[in-house]
Amino acid sequence: MRIDIITIHPELLKSPFEHSILKRAIEKKVVEVNLIDLRDYTTYKHNQVDDYAFGGGAGMVLMIEPIANCLKALKEKNTYDEIIYTSPDGELLQQSTCNYFSTLKNIIVLCGHYKGVDERVREHFVTKEISIGDYVLSGGELAAAVLCDGIIRLLPGVLNDETSALTDSFQDDLLAPPVYTRPAEYNGWKVPDILTSGHTANIEKWRHEKSLERTKERRPELYNKYGKK
Amino acid sequence: MRIDIITIHPELLKSPFEHSILKRAIEKKVVEVNLIDLRDYTTYKHNQVDDYAFGGGAGMVLMIEPIANCLKALKEKNTYDEIIYTSPDGELLQQSTCNYFSTLKNIIVLCGHYKGVDERVREHFVTKEISIGDYVLSGGELAAAVLCDGIIRLLPGVLNDETSALTDSFQDDLLAPPVYTRPAEYNGWKVPDILTSGHTANIEKWRHEKSLERTKERRPELYNKYGKK
Repeated sequence: MRIDIITIHPELLKSPFEHSILKRAIEKKVVEVNLIDLRDYTTYKHNQVDDYAFGGGAGMVLMIEPIANCLKALKEKNTYDEIIYTSPDGELLQQSTCNYFSTLKNIIVLCGHYKGVDERVREHFVTKEISIGDYVLSGGELAAAVLCDGIIRLLPGVLNDETSALTDSFQDDLLAPPVYTRPAEYNGWKVPDILTSGHTANIEKWRHEKSLERTKERRPELYNKYGKK
Repeated sequence: MRIDIITIHPELLKSPFEHSILKRAIEKKVVEVNLIDLRDYTTYKHNQVDDYAFGGGAGMVLMIEPIANCLKALKEKNTYDEIIYTSPDGELLQQSTCNYFSTLKNIIVLCGHYKGVDERVREHFVTKEISIGDYVLSGGELAAAVLCDGIIRLLPGVLNDETSALTDSFQDDLLAPPVYTRPAEYNGWKVPDILTSGHTANIEKWRHEKSLERTKERRPELYNKYGKK
C-alpha cells in the first residue's frame, strides 16, 4: 500500500511513523508513507499556501492552486483509489472505514489546516472526507496520523499475532472485555478467579459476557446495533 | 497547564509537540508537556512493562506495578485534577470534553498499548477514560496527542486570533460553513458571489444557513441536538 500525505507540516508527522508498529510496517515494506510538503507546489511568493477567507472572519484558508498542482504531480506518477481530506465536518471515522481503506492500493491524505481548504478543492478533487471525531484540532495532521495508524495496523503482516486485531474493540461492534496480567495479586487487588482457572471455554464465555456488559453500560447505541445483527 | 503523558513510546510523540501550534504554546509557557517513559518505573528485568493476559489469548497487557510506581512518583510532586486513560472503550471525546479539560491545571494522560492496561489500573487509579473515536489504533499515543492538541489550542493565548476557536465546528453543535480564498476564479470554478459582495450581514446569514444545511445533510443527529436547544 502507498499513502501520500499532503501537509504544510511534514516534520510534525515524522516521529509517529518512525516508531513502534508503523515503523515496523514501513521497514517491512508492507506500506510506503510519503510526507509531501504542500509548500513545494506553490507558485506564490514566500511559499505562501494560505490566504484570508473571502467574506472576512478569523482564520486562514488553504488555497486551491498549490493543492491542485500537488495532486496533478502525484497523479502523473500514480493512480489513486481515494483522495481523502481530514476535516471535522467529514464522515465520522469508524472501524469499518479503516477496514475498507486497508484494502486499497494507493491513497492520498490531504491534511486540512487553520479553517480548512478552499471549498472548491473538496468539490472537485477530494473523494472522501473523514473526521476522526467531534472535536476540533489545530490541523489535520494528527487526524491523518490516526487514520494511517488505524489502516496500517490492519495490513497483513503488520501485527505480530494475526488474531490480535480480530479481538479488538469494534471488530464485532462490542467493546473489548477487561484484561489482566501478572501479578495475580497487587496491593490486595486480585485478578478474577476464572482467568486463572485454566478452563478455556468458561474464560471465553466470561469474556463475552463482560464485553456485552461493558458495551451495554458504556455505549448503549453500539449494544443495540449489535443486538440487531 | 501541565500535562504529563505516560507512555512506552515517548519518542513517538516528539514531533507533534515540536511544530506548529503546540510548539508555540509550549514556548509561550502556556502549557508544559512532559513525555514520561513508563519503562523508567519498572522493577522487572529488561525494562519489562507488559506481560501475557491471564486466561490466554493474543496481545500483551501493560502491568499494574510500573504504572503504580510512575503515578506515585508524579503525585509526590504534583496534585492532579484528572488521570486520563486513552482507550477505545472509554467515553467518546467531544468538543465539550476538550473545553472541560482545558480549564484544569494538572492532568496525567496514560497511553494504553497492545491490549491495554491491567484492569486494576482502571479501577483504582484512572479518573477518566477517553476514546477519540470508534476505531482501534496500535497504541494510545496518537490518541493522547489528539487529546492534547484539542485541549491546548483552547488555552488562552495559543491561537493567534481569539475568535478563531469560537467559529470552529462543534462549538455551537453545528458544522462550519464552506470557506473560500483567492483566486476568486480557478479553472472556471468561481467563489459564491455573496462572499465577494462586501455585505457583512448577508454573508453571516449565508454562512449560518450553510452551516445548518451541511449539518442537517451530513450529521442529522447533531442537527437535531441543535434544534432542541
